[in-house]
Amino acid sequence: MDVLRIAHVAPVATTIPPPKSGSVETMTSVLTEGLVARGHDVTLFATAGSRTRARLHATFEVGYWHDPTMWPWELYEMLNLAAAVERARQFDLIHYEAASFPMSLAFARLSPTPIVQTLHHSPGEAEVRLWARYRDAPFIAISNEQAQLLHGVSVAATVLLGIDTDAFTFQEAPDDYLLFLGRFTAGKGVLQAIEVARRVGMKLILVAAEDAYYRETVAPHVDGTQIVYFGEADHPTKVRLYGGARALLYPVQSREPFGLVLAEAMACGTPVAALDRGAVREVVDDGITGRVFSDLEEMIDGLPRVLALDRRRVRETAVARFGAARMVDGYIGAYRQVVEAQRGRT
Amino acid sequence: MDVLRIAHVAPVATTIPPPKSGSVETMTSVLTEGLVARGHDVTLFATAGSRTRARLHATFEVGYWHDPTMWPWELYEMLNLAAAVERARQFDLIHYEAASFPMSLAFARLSPTPIVQTLHHSPGEAEVRLWARYRDAPFIAISNEQAQLLHGVSVAATVLLGIDTDAFTFQEAPDDYLLFLGRFTAGKGVLQAIEVARRVGMKLILVAAEDAYYRETVAPHVDGTQIVYFGEADHPTKVRLYGGARALLYPVQSREPFGLVLAEAMACGTPVAALDRGAVREVVDDGITGRVFSDLEEMIDGLPRVLALDRRRVRETAVARFGAARMVDGYIGAYRQVVEAQRGRT
Repeated sequence: MDVLRIAHVAPVATTIPPPKSGSVETMTSVLTEGLVARGHDVTLFATAGSRTRARLHATFEVGYWHDPTMWPWELYEMLNLAAAVERARQFDLIHYEAASFPMSLAFARLSPTPIVQTLHHSPGEAEVRLWARYRDAPFIAISNEQAQLLHGVSVAATVLLGIDTDAFTFQEAPDDYLLFLGRFTAGKGVLQAIEVARRVGMKLILVAAEDAYYRETVAPHVDGTQIVYFGEADHPTKVRLYGGARALLYPVQSREPFGLVLAEAMACGTPVAALDRGAVREVVDDGITGRVFSDLEEMIDGLPRVLALDRRRVRETAVARFGAARMVDGYIGAYRQVVEAQRGRT
Repeated sequence: MDVLRIAHVAPVATTIPPPKSGSVETMTSVLTEGLVARGHDVTLFATAGSRTRARLHATFEVGYWHDPTMWPWELYEMLNLAAAVERARQFDLIHYEAASFPMSLAFARLSPTPIVQTLHHSPGEAEVRLWARYRDAPFIAISNEQAQLLHGVSVAATVLLGIDTDAFTFQEAPDDYLLFLGRFTAGKGVLQAIEVARRVGMKLILVAAEDAYYRETVAPHVDGTQIVYFGEADHPTKVRLYGGARALLYPVQSREPFGLVLAEAMACGTPVAALDRGAVREVVDDGITGRVFSDLEEMIDGLPRVLALDRRRVRETAVARFGAARMVDGYIGAYRQVVEAQRGRT
């Protein structure tokens, strides 16, 4: 078995890769292109505007983020997944990127070809209890943190997410500011980031789409000189903002299953100051690409040690650990394992 | 072909029949029990507490109305439907009751057994455009009104909904009030019902669950003497309230695909005063079980002619037209047609 025939089923919210932001869509693109580059026979099930070197099966012209009449979106997502299962015999494996929930479980016992799924959030206990009843559809976890939550569920492998590190330019000499980038939610810790910046007396730039949480909770702290709101950034701007930062602040409050902004900042050479929650210790090499703190006081005290880290080494470590190559290899290994297990059964 | 082996897939929101209200769940129960009474081999896919003479396949212990951790409900509904498709070869036909959207389309091309679906709402144009791409999964429309909206979609038959008319007792001599029963929405026309009652100087009893629309929009009109709010009613209370009414007011504003309350009121002998919208003319025999008006002024002027209708004849007509027998026969005819068409193809 050399070349794998893979159906890669993307979300149908927007194109692959996404026009602006969309972490699942970006990861899907990186993985699909990496698989094609390795010589695998990949069919990407995604919307028509997607750009890929894989064969594109476009179930829909546009995504439901762009067409409010595409509702309920769940039906569109189901029909895109079903299109792959209908052609199951043409593939060795079907891989579903579950942007919100693993609806692939409903097809697992109907498909003659094994289905695996990547989940992009931290599941709750009730979700996991349900999924554990469908052990015939293995998951590929995005971190050990997530794998631990998938108690009783069939987890074929854990493959940390990867990014296209070539798309994140290294910047040796940063400007003099700290950066918060993400969504404005309590869980992401934007208020804590503001507190850190104030206490250490440094400028903080906030980069995220404006929303109700921003207007009600964050905006009162924005003074335009020390605490600056930038808005949402497209990819080139994001790279510039990452590269110009002395450090990325990541005082995350909730247990995140990964933390892509950490990998992205690091790829630009920017060290991170992160709280020890969720998958943070799996993404940050403490003392090399950033520092992991147990609470905010520790972060405030330890920030100088973050700023002192060697940016070139931050970049090099990030490329080795979160470059697409490592993720693609990890997925190929997981695919082969699932395909062989299936052949053993039949 | 005599006995049909039918998989009847219910929503998994609650039990079949429902403990209190739930029009899809009630219809599902009436149809399933009617099919069993006709000697068919029915497997009902529903939650464990369901009461049925069919074989029960309980995918889940309880429904998601009763357990807030069952989320997203779409996945539960999908897995219940998938359970039937997984056993497809044991059935001649799979019938999915689509309480919100026809997710059965995603399974249509994966099932060796034909799948039909009943839709319980009025679809929008974008929905219909999507469904029209899946002509291999026929719909059974609940009214001609709904069938007309299903433009380009495969509609195997139109079978008007039925009710268990034995469960709606005839009451010859009513009390002296008008009745509004349904949900408190602008589309159901509760404010128009209040206007009619005021203009004709009769008492109106409002029966529906309290919600935000009630508190903000309806409650200011409730005076407790002429306009009386009853609350939500269980089945025996509903029957008593229907039977005691001189007429049911149904000044519906939106295009409803059916109007079960019309059939229920009529089964108790209560004539209806309805606006000519959606499926109203298919449900009301104008001049026999009620009157259909083109606007509110006409309804106000014509109400005495509604009150004068012969309640026994209202009941008898309702039993003939909306009794379970007619619906069950209609479904059996549609099933046979779909099964024979499928056999012709293979």
